[in-house]
Amino acid sequence: MMYPVKRLLIGRPLKSTELGEQKLSKTKALAILSSDALSSVAYGPEQILIVLITISAAAFWYSIPIAIGVLVLLTALILSYRQIIFAYPHGGGAYVVSKNNLGVNSGLIAGGSLLVDYILTVAVSVSAGTDAITSAFPALHTHNVLIAIIFVILLTILNLRGVTESASVLAYPVYLFVLTLLILIGVGLFNIATGVVPSNLHTPIGTPVAGISLFLLLKAFASGSSALTGVEAISNAIPNFKEPAPKNAAKTLTFMGGLLAVLFSGIIFLSYYYGIAPSEKVTVVSQIAEETFGRNFMYFIIQGTTALILILAANTGYTAFPLLAVNLAKDKFIPRMFTIRGDRLGYSNGIIFLAISSILLIIVFEGKTEHLIPLYAVGVFIPFTLSQTGMVVKWVREKPKDWVRKLSINALGALICFIVTWMFFITKFTQVWPVLVFIPAIMFIFHRIKNHYEAVGSQLRITEDHPAVAIEGNVIIVPVAGITRVVENSLNYAKSLSANQIIAVYVAFEREDEKKFEEKWNKWQPDVRLVTLHSQYRSIIQPLTKFVDIVQHKASEANYGVTVIIPQFLPKKGWQHILHNQSSILIRAFLLFRRDVIITTVPYHLKK
Amino acid sequence: MMYPVKRLLIGRPLKSTELGEQKLSKTKALAILSSDALSSVAYGPEQILIVLITISAAAFWYSIPIAIGVLVLLTALILSYRQIIFAYPHGGGAYVVSKNNLGVNSGLIAGGSLLVDYILTVAVSVSAGTDAITSAFPALHTHNVLIAIIFVILLTILNLRGVTESASVLAYPVYLFVLTLLILIGVGLFNIATGVVPSNLHTPIGTPVAGISLFLLLKAFASGSSALTGVEAISNAIPNFKEPAPKNAAKTLTFMGGLLAVLFSGIIFLSYYYGIAPSEKVTVVSQIAEETFGRNFMYFIIQGTTALILILAANTGYTAFPLLAVNLAKDKFIPRMFTIRGDRLGYSNGIIFLAISSILLIIVFEGKTEHLIPLYAVGVFIPFTLSQTGMVVKWVREKPKDWVRKLSINALGALICFIVTWMFFITKFTQVWPVLVFIPAIMFIFHRIKNHYEAVGSQLRITEDHPAVAIEGNVIIVPVAGITRVVENSLNYAKSLSANQIIAVYVAFEREDEKKFEEKWNKWQPDVRLVTLHSQYRSIIQPLTKFVDIVQHKASEANYGVTVIIPQFLPKKGWQHILHNQSSILIRAFLLFRRDVIITTVPYHLKK
Repeated sequence: MMYPVKRLLIGRPLKSTELGEQKLSKTKALAILSSDALSSVAYGPEQILIVLITISAAAFWYSIPIAIGVLVLLTALILSYRQIIFAYPHGGGAYVVSKNNLGVNSGLIAGGSLLVDYILTVAVSVSAGTDAITSAFPALHTHNVLIAIIFVILLTILNLRGVTESASVLAYPVYLFVLTLLILIGVGLFNIATGVVPSNLHTPIGTPVAGISLFLLLKAFASGSSALTGVEAISNAIPNFKEPAPKNAAKTLTFMGGLLAVLFSGIIFLSYYYGIAPSEKVTVVSQIAEETFGRNFMYFIIQGTTALILILAANTGYTAFPLLAVNLAKDKFIPRMFTIRGDRLGYSNGIIFLAISSILLIIVFEGKTEHLIPLYAVGVFIPFTLSQTGMVVKWVREKPKDWVRKLSINALGALICFIVTWMFFITKFTQVWPVLVFIPAIMFIFHRIKNHYEAVGSQLRITEDHPAVAIEGNVIIVPVAGITRVVENSLNYAKSLSANQIIAVYVAFEREDEKKFEEKWNKWQPDVRLVTLHSQYRSIIQPLTKFVDIVQHKASEANYGVTVIIPQFLPKKGWQHILHNQSSILIRAFLLFRRDVIITTVPYHLKK
Repeated sequence: MMYPVKRLLIGRPLKSTELGEQKLSKTKALAILSSDALSSVAYGPEQILIVLITISAAAFWYSIPIAIGVLVLLTALILSYRQIIFAYPHGGGAYVVSKNNLGVNSGLIAGGSLLVDYILTVAVSVSAGTDAITSAFPALHTHNVLIAIIFVILLTILNLRGVTESASVLAYPVYLFVLTLLILIGVGLFNIATGVVPSNLHTPIGTPVAGISLFLLLKAFASGSSALTGVEAISNAIPNFKEPAPKNAAKTLTFMGGLLAVLFSGIIFLSYYYGIAPSEKVTVVSQIAEETFGRNFMYFIIQGTTALILILAANTGYTAFPLLAVNLAKDKFIPRMFTIRGDRLGYSNGIIFLAISSILLIIVFEGKTEHLIPLYAVGVFIPFTLSQTGMVVKWVREKPKDWVRKLSINALGALICFIVTWMFFITKFTQVWPVLVFIPAIMFIFHRIKNHYEAVGSQLRITEDHPAVAIEGNVIIVPVAGITRVVENSLNYAKSLSANQIIAVYVAFEREDEKKFEEKWNKWQPDVRLVTLHSQYRSIIQPLTKFVDIVQHKASEANYGVTVIIPQFLPKKGWQHILHNQSSILIRAFLLFRRDVIITTVPYHLKK
């Protein structure tokens, strides 16, 4: 029943050999991997102004030097990540780089924070986008959580259909967003150049401002840096690119960096020049759009594409999370199931896990995930710092051609990221402290899982020194509930196995019942030994287990195996299962997990 | 891990022989079986006034003749049900009576409406009680649903502990409620007699009222009759009484009827005399209490016990539902599991089913279950009518001593109940129409289940004409995922079974892997034939199923059985299961449900 629904939603299964066709061109890759970074333009500049307004509107000119700082950081990151892409062409980003150069635990810190971060990305961006939409249609506001969950489910289905298909769908809104913002910036600058905008709306750069402090400027810078989350996504997703993958990825990264720089500085400059103050109700981008176009068609296009890009930013998480999970799973730090490709060749378990986790986050925070943003930003800058540091170590260790230049780029990147990380801890400790709890917790879980896999591996390996003991014979126990075809069927099978002994076991709740059954049995199957057990607590499992234990104790002395044959009749339709006491399923589960006996299920399929 | 928690909550398991000690004395039975009926006093009189006030306060005097009508109905019901108790001393009430005298479908209509009704009882009374409590503590109001669910869970635990224990706990609040109301009525009447209360608060009986209509009076009467829900509970629960059960049950019923009559007419009279009008915010009982005592200690005691009794009214559902379910399950109309006694000898499946259903109702209606009351009342009067009619048929058919008197009592009861049922449909159709949907739906389900059980029975019965075909030999298939101890273990077992053929099957996802594995295998187990299958869609189940089908086709020609031996390693701790791809479980489930092969699981318990 579920099968056709699945086919309709995610399409026909693909052969393993069709993997090559699922690779991304640069234009498509840009669309699905940069939506997170580009969407930050919609809130990054605002974050800076929100900090500055705590002093006064006069302090707004500081947004220009702060933006320059953010651009320097962006440049350093793009250059550093280009180097990472070429050094690690199989992807994995911060996790692989940190693990290989700084050791396993650094890798796990980077990988763990990124895993959590991608979940936060999905929850935060979908909630923000939903908020933007329901602000336009207030009647929908009470259904925020539900709408956000529906968006997550839609993105999940899109990603389960496969990378290229989601790229084809998502490319339009992403490019439309870039285009409309470019038009906005262009028209805005034209207006300023032609003098349409009065030049007295802002305080000139350099105006002294009372009460400004280094702490405040650092806080504003850290807030602005949150616009850079998402730039690492491309380095994680190199395997998704068409060949030559690293080269295409590097070009895409550079192009994205350029776009991000243009949009970010354009918005910052316009908001400074227009003297725009952050407001609870209207976003900065929306204010700029209104100043520039008035409330006309263009204004609504910008509002619409902004809402859309916020939701699509979640897609970066969908692309990067499963690939990172594969790397962690291959190293046995998370369950192996994350390495399995689904019907459409995507790592569907990762996609589904991401979807469920982010839906849970949305529900728990009732769709109000804004205060997760700093947490999310710090979760990005920790792996940024670690991977850049890892690259520094790598260059020092390998000393390739031109290594001093490469080293200085990564060293600069590492330093800035390290400073930004600290700024978050210093200026927003009340919001980012959970990182200090969940990173150790995740590390602990990673190691527990790894230890388990290694313990299992060593126990399953066949070694010469412990050859398996051959089984000399078999005792078969058949629990019976009555005299029926199902039991007859199972006994027939037991007899065909030429076992050393067959014992039928009947559990009676009442004394009279016991005798009656024995008489009937002896008439029906005189050649099969029947043991009846009395259960005064109306449990079948307890007396049966006790009996199995006794038999097994004797059997093991003779190197005999004990097999419990469970007769099970299977109704024709699924719903009918609830009409039958599931004793056979319970008995099987109990014996299998707690005792060392072999369990055989003899099915009896009902025909009507 | 769950076991000690279960023991703590519901106590040690009881032996089947301890059943007798779980029987109820009359005082305890009254407490747990009449809480529903008695609690109706808290809202029944109010329901009458709510209808009358739609005309004017002058119409309030009609509450007196309406109350007399309700008392007549109550008397008829009590007398009729006494006769039912003696005629059907094994309980079952409306279901058994209707089925035996009017036919199976009438029985099912009665049984089905009562089943649904008990679920409604629990949801409605707990919600009402919670409302009463949170009205006193407005801060709790937003948590209404949660609090109601907690109360349902508490009642469930209490009932899982056993009938006598819940009776011991619940007796105090029930009797306290009765006592406080008796004091209230006593003091009120004393005040009236001594002239403390002015006699001009009410319009005299017989005052002409403009706009009064028969329709309205009928509606008020139907509303007042909702105070009589719950009187059938005792007749369902006769098996819970101490011997002589029918006699004790009849006495309890009569006593309850008396109490109900006194409380109901007392409240009605006081509210009439005090000229009390129904209000959104303050209940009628609460207004009477305030008039009588002022806002002192006694007032709050009455408020508190009223809230409590509303919640405890749910307990009637807990006592009657499982017993009714047993009767339906014995006749195979609902799943057999409802006939199983739990650890404490209660029918725990019925109790748990009732709890889950009513919690769902509370969640769906967000705790606002008031508008379910008419639905619930009509769901009571349909079985009332059917059972009385059934008794009439019985007396006519059997003509025992004194049958004319017996017949007239039941005939009167049937007639009044029939009229009340019609009144509900005529005056409150918009609220009671769902009955017309869910009763046919339930009947359909009942019959589907019955048909299934009968089909199963006939298929399982051993008949002479179709002797089972003996199995001539066995082919064993062992799916293998690698060369490990788990596989070795399974092969050892397969070899010990002296099968005609053992085939190991390996599913490869890549061509190179296939050859490599074959080479390794032939070195390791040269005597076991290996078949490798290629899976281009990365599914193990599909190619394996296909292969099993081919083998089975050949095997069946020679009357051979096909056994699939599934090696399964079992990690030491439960959480570790999620770390392993559950292929063995999936393969087993798929083959067992879809194919006619025997499935053997050979466990390999990991030691660390």
